[in-house]
Amino acid sequence: MTTQQLIDQIRIKKSFLAVGLDVDLNKIPQHLLALEDPIFEFNKAIIDATHDLAVAYKPNTAFYEAYGIKGWLSLQKTIQYINATYPDIFTIADAKRGDIGNTSSMYAKAFFEDLNFDSVTVAPYMGKDSVEPFLAFENKHTIMLALTSNEGAFDFQTLITNPEISGGKELYKQVLETSKSWKKSENLMYVVGATKAEYFSEIRKIVPDSFLLVPGVGAQGGSLSEVCKYGMNANVGLLVNSSRAIIYASNGTDFAQKARAEALKMQQEMEEIISLKFKD
Amino acid sequence: MTTQQLIDQIRIKKSFLAVGLDVDLNKIPQHLLALEDPIFEFNKAIIDATHDLAVAYKPNTAFYEAYGIKGWLSLQKTIQYINATYPDIFTIADAKRGDIGNTSSMYAKAFFEDLNFDSVTVAPYMGKDSVEPFLAFENKHTIMLALTSNEGAFDFQTLITNPEISGGKELYKQVLETSKSWKKSENLMYVVGATKAEYFSEIRKIVPDSFLLVPGVGAQGGSLSEVCKYGMNANVGLLVNSSRAIIYASNGTDFAQKARAEALKMQQEMEEIISLKFKD
Repeated sequence: MTTQQLIDQIRIKKSFLAVGLDVDLNKIPQHLLALEDPIFEFNKAIIDATHDLAVAYKPNTAFYEAYGIKGWLSLQKTIQYINATYPDIFTIADAKRGDIGNTSSMYAKAFFEDLNFDSVTVAPYMGKDSVEPFLAFENKHTIMLALTSNEGAFDFQTLITNPEISGGKELYKQVLETSKSWKKSENLMYVVGATKAEYFSEIRKIVPDSFLLVPGVGAQGGSLSEVCKYGMNANVGLLVNSSRAIIYASNGTDFAQKARAEALKMQQEMEEIISLKFKD
Repeated sequence: MTTQQLIDQIRIKKSFLAVGLDVDLNKIPQHLLALEDPIFEFNKAIIDATHDLAVAYKPNTAFYEAYGIKGWLSLQKTIQYINATYPDIFTIADAKRGDIGNTSSMYAKAFFEDLNFDSVTVAPYMGKDSVEPFLAFENKHTIMLALTSNEGAFDFQTLITNPEISGGKELYKQVLETSKSWKKSENLMYVVGATKAEYFSEIRKIVPDSFLLVPGVGAQGGSLSEVCKYGMNANVGLLVNSSRAIIYASNGTDFAQKARAEALKMQQEMEEIISLKFKD
């Protein structure tokens, strides 16, 4: 999917919602466990109930790998189902990969070719040659961690570098700036946690045009309106993710309807923000 | 496996060699492609030919994920084969994972429980709560990236922090120091690339007792003797990895014998270093 196609979908649906498919067999409705592939059946029901409200789905690979081969098969069936049934949906493999060049090429092949995701999340620690192999893919997007939504974000991401030797700014800002010089950096998006809304205006000075994938609204305490106030650009430029608040809204047989109700609440909040922001 | 059992194996085998199983179907002997699971058959032959010379095997998960379900199955069969046939071997899932706490728990479950690896590599960018879920597993080891062997290591890992605000040292040193305060940090090992041998003495000041997993000897240009000179401790404390130089020593029907010959060269070099170092 091209960036323009994603922007078009946001306009059409009046939504920039990404639904995180972090499926834990201990949390899904127990009646699904009798089925052959409970994880896929759960995802399919959630997707069918929310596809007109969300512009993206984001399966987190950890939740599939934890179930071994069966889990990987559920992931494969899920992405195939989305691509076949709702081809306008933007898909994110939340995998946080990153390794030396020839290895990152294999990860890119896994997510962009074998599974055919539109995007994959990557970690920046190993630098340029660990990310560029992902960027090389046409109409695919590489979403790099910048400032994450967890407590540990303050361990290293906000360390300030030496002004005389290393730039004199927080590590996550250095990550953002440095990445702009990489080959095919136009294929980069960034993860920025919603729990740190006040950081968005600083981040927008460095990457005004890039899409930001924003976890941490809802369950992790971030505010949608604050994020939008500081983080939105002329193309919206945000994908706000919600996982648990939507997919585990109920663990009864009504789970899909309840998930839709939660997704609808978020979409309506987004529609209001969009209409206020772009009213002129 | 306990750390002591790993140390014992190093003493018995006079080797601290880890063999990287980065299996690319384009590089393995073509006669294997007629078999049902060429990747597993290749690994099995390499392992059978080198198990008395190596103390560890390190499959890199990217090379398995790139082949989808079939690849994940090859990885599963490989680790099951090692655990069943050579239980004294230390196994490393080179996966470079790391995410928020509940997600890292799922990755830990995937590699420590479902696949039953002794250790997994993780990335530090997301900080404490992204790594501690791995550390919680008894007799399992978490190998965190510190200073990697690739060119991109100089993008962020060697940035120097502000002495007045953030510690005044290279990021990788800050990563090493901070990680020592984490819960169950005794289960940490670190990745330190061989291409930067001069850094080992500085690193040993921070983590004198920890095991270091060292990629980059051979194909990437690092020197074994230099690494040992600065990096070895009283328990050896090193696992030196070689992947391509061993597993792709030949792509004919003699690939396993040639792999053994390369592994033997490295083991003999290691034995000589060990005997010189510990002669008294």
